[in-house]
Amino acid sequence: MALSDVPAVERNEEGIAAVLGILKQRFGERFQTGASMREQHAHTTTYIPTQAPDGVVFPETTEEVQEIVRACAAHRVPVIAFGTGTSLEGHVNAPGGGISLDTSRMNRILAVHAEDLDCVVEPGVTREALNTHLRDTGLFFPIDPGANASLGGMASTRASGTNAVRYGTMRENVMALTAVMADGSAITTASRAKKSSAGYDLTRLLVGSEGTLGIITSLTLKLYGIPQAISGGVCPFPSVDAACNAVISTIQMGIPVARIELVNALQMRALKLHSHLDYPESPCLFVEFHGTEAGVAEQAESFGEIAAEYGGGPFLWTGVAEERTKLWKARHEAYWASLTLRPGAKGLSTDVCVPISRLAECIAETEEDIARMGLIAPIVGHVGDGNFHTLVLMDMNDPKEIALAEEFVGRLNMRAIAMGGTCTGEHGVGQGKMGFLRHELGGAVDVMRSIKAALDPQNILNPGKILPL
Amino acid sequence: MALSDVPAVERNEEGIAAVLGILKQRFGERFQTGASMREQHAHTTTYIPTQAPDGVVFPETTEEVQEIVRACAAHRVPVIAFGTGTSLEGHVNAPGGGISLDTSRMNRILAVHAEDLDCVVEPGVTREALNTHLRDTGLFFPIDPGANASLGGMASTRASGTNAVRYGTMRENVMALTAVMADGSAITTASRAKKSSAGYDLTRLLVGSEGTLGIITSLTLKLYGIPQAISGGVCPFPSVDAACNAVISTIQMGIPVARIELVNALQMRALKLHSHLDYPESPCLFVEFHGTEAGVAEQAESFGEIAAEYGGGPFLWTGVAEERTKLWKARHEAYWASLTLRPGAKGLSTDVCVPISRLAECIAETEEDIARMGLIAPIVGHVGDGNFHTLVLMDMNDPKEIALAEEFVGRLNMRAIAMGGTCTGEHGVGQGKMGFLRHELGGAVDVMRSIKAALDPQNILNPGKILPL
Repeated sequence: MALSDVPAVERNEEGIAAVLGILKQRFGERFQTGASMREQHAHTTTYIPTQAPDGVVFPETTEEVQEIVRACAAHRVPVIAFGTGTSLEGHVNAPGGGISLDTSRMNRILAVHAEDLDCVVEPGVTREALNTHLRDTGLFFPIDPGANASLGGMASTRASGTNAVRYGTMRENVMALTAVMADGSAITTASRAKKSSAGYDLTRLLVGSEGTLGIITSLTLKLYGIPQAISGGVCPFPSVDAACNAVISTIQMGIPVARIELVNALQMRALKLHSHLDYPESPCLFVEFHGTEAGVAEQAESFGEIAAEYGGGPFLWTGVAEERTKLWKARHEAYWASLTLRPGAKGLSTDVCVPISRLAECIAETEEDIARMGLIAPIVGHVGDGNFHTLVLMDMNDPKEIALAEEFVGRLNMRAIAMGGTCTGEHGVGQGKMGFLRHELGGAVDVMRSIKAALDPQNILNPGKILPL
Repeated sequence: MALSDVPAVERNEEGIAAVLGILKQRFGERFQTGASMREQHAHTTTYIPTQAPDGVVFPETTEEVQEIVRACAAHRVPVIAFGTGTSLEGHVNAPGGGISLDTSRMNRILAVHAEDLDCVVEPGVTREALNTHLRDTGLFFPIDPGANASLGGMASTRASGTNAVRYGTMRENVMALTAVMADGSAITTASRAKKSSAGYDLTRLLVGSEGTLGIITSLTLKLYGIPQAISGGVCPFPSVDAACNAVISTIQMGIPVARIELVNALQMRALKLHSHLDYPESPCLFVEFHGTEAGVAEQAESFGEIAAEYGGGPFLWTGVAEERTKLWKARHEAYWASLTLRPGAKGLSTDVCVPISRLAECIAETEEDIARMGLIAPIVGHVGDGNFHTLVLMDMNDPKEIALAEEFVGRLNMRAIAMGGTCTGEHGVGQGKMGFLRHELGGAVDVMRSIKAALDPQNILNPGKILPL
């Protein structure tokens, strides 16, 4: 499976011309067709080549999204929802052209229900903007994929990140959605009740559907009280295997760790170079605990004991906010730090997730593959969930390197699938993973296609993504 | 909305006759058509009148389920999955006749992956059977709807119960499913990875679909380590309002309570009569904490302080297993205890769930309604989630009483919906709630219908449930 296998989407030139005219007239300055604007809306943090849309529109309300979708539906023109462009698998590319629907002006926080621990936001609100807004309420939204992504985009890719091990992913934290469907109708998928058995779970169907079934125009999200106490630290291990075994024991013991992140030796070297962290160049776990003062101390102590059993340590932890922030800032900069290992290179990020019992084995085989193939590819992992990323650094001007990287990714994805895992833990399918979906899910892909055909019979919502047609 | 408004499903006599012949020949003794067997498979713990199927078949494998569904599909005959018959909204009724597919012989535990905290079971395994099987592993499956329901049935109705406040519902605890679709194909919805962004979330689509989109033939479920320590107790309050406010504070403070159940004064009277509990006849909260020894003590202490702020107490709690078991046994017998308040009566159970900020108000208005209408209807609630049940006791021989009870339920459902809640927190739609779905979800119901039509174009999977056609 290489990118060149991703099927083309036919351009409907006549329809596109008609929609360009309609949107120009209706949205004026809020509709742009300049080349750099269009390129920007297809270029994401990925090595996948840009496929620009024909125009970019900036709606401000659900009703305007409905108007845009109706125009696109009438002329059978693709419409591709866009958040911040931080997705990694070509999600916002426009293989058949069409309209990029940029949600950045839909950035209002519509309600914060502090008593109910929820809020309602428009899709263009970023996770950092939401947490800034919440600062005085004692509440926070925990999902943190690293990038300051939009919440609509995070829902669309079923994003998660470092603290999913405790707080879940967007799947668990989106309570309800408003979405515009392919026929221009707007629906609300659920009430604000914390649980419900009222019919099919359309919320979860839209979360992770990458804009192919509907365009999200508002989200009801769960919030959490900011923990009374937070402690965290870094623990070195003699091997990746030892670190993974410590993770397994931690999870099995039921220690409610808020974050538990693996960084392999090469990635530690990159972090040290980039962020001046004073740690050994050996595999490390970055951990964080949330709870009461007594609770986090108890958790940290239990974790330290487990780590020692596997030869890890010393485990130095701190409750001081500044020190923790420095650590996690470094962890979050892993992507950029990695790029310094090979200046000028582009990174191809992988995203497999396996049952935790297979994690050490999966990482070990992957490290062997990296060594054997002569790649430069540091590893970081949300290991409490069995999810890890490698960043393959390659010279985009060398087709052989790209082919080698794709071969490596293909082997990695198939390895994870063979171990009962998935080719994508949190990045989504987009264009990059389309070729692996059937390997992973077999005939379930046909059921997905039936749903897509039923809800978007003209295939105008982000065509050429997730499902090979 | 009364039950009499539930639309009929037309009988396909010719097709039914053909399928009866096919199944008799193929399944022999494992296919039954006796009247009492058929009645049993439509009679559930509900006041909704029985609509018996034409035959009951007992498959033992996914392949046999496929054979049955293919026969029904070929002759356009309804097929209704059956677990233990403990659903409450007429879910297993056969309004157009057809075949009841009883999963009780699909009761194998296929795998327990202790390291991964998951297991794979067939749909006929009950939650108690699973927990008995797990006893020596130190793990347990937490979802507890009261009845010893089958796990396939629990997934189908998106069940939850007393400890959903901490462990979530079936939505959060089913990781993957194998299901037979309306065309007889079998699909697996997801890998065993703890999280995934691989395409549409078919797992969550099938959970809660009440056998109308596919028939579950195996489930991968999350497991949890049995907590090191469990403590619990009962706390009386001067009013329902005070108890609800204590709940809101407990949840907002982030106390990770495992169970927090409201029992109103009338229900306490029933429990005292039935289970000989020595508590005052005032509203009470039953609570339970899971964690380390130090952790549960800290939680119990914090809860006691909150309760006292709202005039509650004394809060007597215990870590002794036998005492806790007695308390929760009594709580679980609330349904049967309630029936003793009016011997000979049948109970109509309601199931609204509202944002927790509206809970006190919703219960207060409901208690007023009960008093004003002269009903006998005790209240219990999974109040940490904003979910509560009333059990309206009525004389089934008096049509006026039934009409009154239905009027009460209608008002209650509309009240919850108006407060941003749902007409069903955990029981499902079945036949009983069909009339309320559009009030709650508007046009989203049309999207559900499109999905149903795409995946079951002949409408053979549990027809006449969830969606009015």
